[in-house]
Amino acid sequence: MLQNENYTLLCDFYELTMSNGYFKLGRGKEITYFDVFFRTVPDGAGYAIFAGLEQFIDYIKNLHFTEEDIAMLRAKGQFDEEFLEFLRTFRFTGDIYAMKEGTPIFPGEPIVTVRAPAIEAQLIETFALLTLNHQSLIATKASRIVRAADGRAVAEFGSRRAQGTAGAILGARASYIGGCAGTACTLAERDYGIPATGTMAHSWVQMFDDEYTAFRTYCELYPDNVTLLIDTYDAIGSGVPNAIRAIKEVLLPRGCKKYAVRLDSGDLAYLTKKIRKMLDEAGLPDCRITATNSLDENIIKTLLSQGAKIDAFGVGERLICSASNPVFGGVYKLVAVENADGTIRPKIKISENVEKITNPGYKKPYRVFDKETGMMIADYIALADEVLDENEPLLLFDPVNTWKHKTVENYRLECLHIPVFLGGECVYESPNVHEIRDYCREQLSLLWDEVKRFDNPHRYYVDLSDNLWTLKQEMLRGRR
Amino acid sequence: MLQNENYTLLCDFYELTMSNGYFKLGRGKEITYFDVFFRTVPDGAGYAIFAGLEQFIDYIKNLHFTEEDIAMLRAKGQFDEEFLEFLRTFRFTGDIYAMKEGTPIFPGEPIVTVRAPAIEAQLIETFALLTLNHQSLIATKASRIVRAADGRAVAEFGSRRAQGTAGAILGARASYIGGCAGTACTLAERDYGIPATGTMAHSWVQMFDDEYTAFRTYCELYPDNVTLLIDTYDAIGSGVPNAIRAIKEVLLPRGCKKYAVRLDSGDLAYLTKKIRKMLDEAGLPDCRITATNSLDENIIKTLLSQGAKIDAFGVGERLICSASNPVFGGVYKLVAVENADGTIRPKIKISENVEKITNPGYKKPYRVFDKETGMMIADYIALADEVLDENEPLLLFDPVNTWKHKTVENYRLECLHIPVFLGGECVYESPNVHEIRDYCREQLSLLWDEVKRFDNPHRYYVDLSDNLWTLKQEMLRGRR
Repeated sequence: MLQNENYTLLCDFYELTMSNGYFKLGRGKEITYFDVFFRTVPDGAGYAIFAGLEQFIDYIKNLHFTEEDIAMLRAKGQFDEEFLEFLRTFRFTGDIYAMKEGTPIFPGEPIVTVRAPAIEAQLIETFALLTLNHQSLIATKASRIVRAADGRAVAEFGSRRAQGTAGAILGARASYIGGCAGTACTLAERDYGIPATGTMAHSWVQMFDDEYTAFRTYCELYPDNVTLLIDTYDAIGSGVPNAIRAIKEVLLPRGCKKYAVRLDSGDLAYLTKKIRKMLDEAGLPDCRITATNSLDENIIKTLLSQGAKIDAFGVGERLICSASNPVFGGVYKLVAVENADGTIRPKIKISENVEKITNPGYKKPYRVFDKETGMMIADYIALADEVLDENEPLLLFDPVNTWKHKTVENYRLECLHIPVFLGGECVYESPNVHEIRDYCREQLSLLWDEVKRFDNPHRYYVDLSDNLWTLKQEMLRGRR
Repeated sequence: MLQNENYTLLCDFYELTMSNGYFKLGRGKEITYFDVFFRTVPDGAGYAIFAGLEQFIDYIKNLHFTEEDIAMLRAKGQFDEEFLEFLRTFRFTGDIYAMKEGTPIFPGEPIVTVRAPAIEAQLIETFALLTLNHQSLIATKASRIVRAADGRAVAEFGSRRAQGTAGAILGARASYIGGCAGTACTLAERDYGIPATGTMAHSWVQMFDDEYTAFRTYCELYPDNVTLLIDTYDAIGSGVPNAIRAIKEVLLPRGCKKYAVRLDSGDLAYLTKKIRKMLDEAGLPDCRITATNSLDENIIKTLLSQGAKIDAFGVGERLICSASNPVFGGVYKLVAVENADGTIRPKIKISENVEKITNPGYKKPYRVFDKETGMMIADYIALADEVLDENEPLLLFDPVNTWKHKTVENYRLECLHIPVFLGGECVYESPNVHEIRDYCREQLSLLWDEVKRFDNPHRYYVDLSDNLWTLKQEMLRGRR
C-alpha cells in the first residue's frame, strides 16, 4: 500500500537547512503556528473542495528519518552531527487542526493550522502543500465537471495522462470526492474503494477480423454489463449497426438490460443525436450512450446545450491534470510564535499586493449558517481565544472595503477546524471516501447557486472578526 | 524506495476485462505489437524529450499480482477463476524496444514498441503511458525553460505544487534530464542523485525580531553558500540593505565568495536592475541575484529581453505541472498481430482525421544524420525487416503531401530503438541521470535551431519508408 511509503525526505531542501539552523541556535523547540490557505480558486470558480487530509495524516504518522536518509544528508556536508543525531529519533509532536475533507473552501481562510516546534512545523511544509494542493485541485475540478453533467454519471478515465502514479491513484480518489461515479484506475479501488469500471479499447476491436465478431464476442463474455466502443473504423457506418446486431442477437434473447455504446471521437453532439435515433429505431431505447474524448465542464455544457444524447461521460486528461488550470496555489505561512510563557506573538508577511498580506495570529474559521434556510451565509475567521455567542448579532464586514458590512441574526456557527493531531497523537479517524463524498455533496447543497456559477460567480464572504481585523491593522501600521 | 512499489493494478480496468476475454477465448498468448507514439508537441514546440523509461523498466520487472490484488478482482464478480489462477503466476515474457531517455522525439514515430502476448501487452498500457507521458512532458518543458534562461542555471522548485508525490520526485528527475541544474526536492537526490538545493523561506526571516538578524544569523550558519531571501517585508527598502550589511559584516571578512540574494515577488525586471545597481555600488559585484515567482520560458525570455539582472532562476509550478500545457498525449496502439507461423499481420486504426490514422506493422525508427555537418536531417520509419543501406541514396517524402520529397546522400543512419526486454528478460541497464542529461544536451546540439524555435518552429521530418507508406495506403484502400 502506498500509505506506508516514507516520504520524510519529500521536503524542499531549505526546510532542512532552516531546521539545522534552528537546532544550532537552540530554537528548534520554539512553538510556531503555520496556516495553510489559498488565494484564488482555479478556473475562476466560486468555491473549491478540500481533499487530501487522509494522506497528509498518513504522512505525519510515518514521519521518520531512516539511516539512508541521514547518510544522504550527511554527504551534503551542510548539517551538524548533533542535528543529524537528533533526526534519528525525530517524530512529529505537535497539534494539527484541519477542515474535513469534502468541505467547500474559500480563499484566505486557514484550511489547516499546524502548531508545532519550529523544526517540525517547517519540515512538513512541502508534503502538506503537495498533497492538499493536488487533491483539492482535482476534487474541485471534478465538482465542476459533475455539475456540468447535470445528473449524468461522470467516470474518471485519466490514469494514462496523470502526472505520475499518485496523480492517477489519488487523483481518482479526489475525483470521487468531488462527485465522480467511478474511475478506470483499478488500484484506486483496491486501496481506496473507488469503484473501478471500463470495458473495451480500440485494440479489442482490432484483434478480431471484423467489428461485429469483436462486439458479439464481448457480449457473450460480459452479458450483464456491456459497453461497445463503436468508432474504431466508422461509428455511423459500421459501429452502430454492428452494435445493434450484437445486442439484438446476444443480449436481448438473454433478457440482458444493461448495455451501452461508447463514442470516443468525432462531433459528439451531431453523432450522438444520430446514434440515439438509430438505436431507438432499432428498438433499443434502453441502450445508453457514453461519450469520451478530451471532455471537461465547458465541452460537456456546450454538448448538452446543443441537445447531445449522452447518458454518461468518461473524462480523462482534462480532469486528472485539471488541464485548464493545473495548479492549486495553497501556501503555508508562519502566523504566530509562542513565547516561553505560552502567550502568542502574532506574525505577519507584508506584500505590496494587499491580497497577499497574511492574516496574523492563531485563528479559528467558522461557517455561518442561516438558521431559517440552512444555507451558508459566510465564513468568519476569529482569533482562537475569542468566544463567539450565536445569540448575539454578528457583524460581518469586508476586510478590505470595510464600509461593506451587514449584521446577521438567527444564525448558527460551525467551527470548521477539527483536531487531527494533539501532542503528536492522531486523534481523528478519516471517514471512508464514500462518506467524504456524501458530506461534500451535502455541504454543496447548502451553498447558494450564485456562488456555484461556472463563470463570474458571486464571491462568498470570508470575513475577519473585529479583533482579528484590528490586530492585522495594528501590525501593518507598526511595521510601516 | 519507490521503485519497489507494485503497480500491477495501476491499469485501466478494461485492460483486465479484455485480458480475461482473451484468456477465455484461448487467445491470451497470441503475439501482438503495440506502439507508443504521440501526435503533437506540448506548447506548439518543435521537439519533445523522451523520459521515464527507467521507471517503466522497474514497473515491468516488478509486474505481478499479489493475493490482495486477486482477491479484489475476484470480488468484482466479472473474472473467471481460471483467469485469476493464471494471474497468480503472471509475469511479463515479451520484448520491448525503446528509444533512450533524453532522446529528442517527434510526433508519429514509435517511441516504444512492445511485442508480447495479448494479455501482457494490454495490461501494461496504462502504466507505460502514464510514466512515459509524465516524464516526457516535464523533460520537454524543462528543456524549453532552460533554453530560455540562455546559459543561466535553472533549479526546479515545484514539489509543493506537484500533482502527487511521484509528480514531485520523478518530475524533479525529468526536469534534470531536460537540463535543470538541480531541484528543491531532497528525496530526488536520495533516490536519483538529482542535486538538491535551497536556503531559506520567508518564515526564517519572520522568526527573527528583525530582518538583519535573520540574514546575519544565516550567514554565520552557512558562510560557504548563502542565498538571502530579500522580500519578506520590502525588497528595496529593507531587504537589499540588510543583505548587503550581513554579507559585508559576516562573509567578506571570512573571504566567502558564494553569496546571492533571492527575489520572489514584484516586477522582476525593474527590481533586479535596481538591486544589481545597489549591490554593485555597495562593492558586491559578485553577489548573484536569483529570481523565483511563477516563472516559465515566456516570462524568462521577456525578463531577459528587458535587461533583467538575474543570474539564476528557480522555477516551480509552471515547470513541475507544465502548467501551460499539462498533458503529453502519448497513445498506445495495436499495430500488428503475429500469426502462428510467425508472419506478421499489420493492423490499422482508421480515423476521419488523417493525422490520427496509425502507422501499421512492426517498425523501426531511424535517425538520419548529415555526415558532413553531423546534424539531424530527418527521422525515417521503416518496417522492421527492411534492410537499409547507408551507401544508397535515401528518398525522403512527406507521408501526407507526397509531392514534397528529397533524396539525401552522404548520410548516417542510427536505429533509435534499443532492445530493453527480450523474452521477458531485461537486457538494458539504464544510464544514470547525469549521463541521460548529457546525452540529451548532446543530441539537442545536433538539432537545427529552426526546429528549436519557441514559437512556430520548423517541423522536423518524420518520414515513412516507401514500403511502409505503400502498406498503409493498401490497408486504407482495402478497408474502404
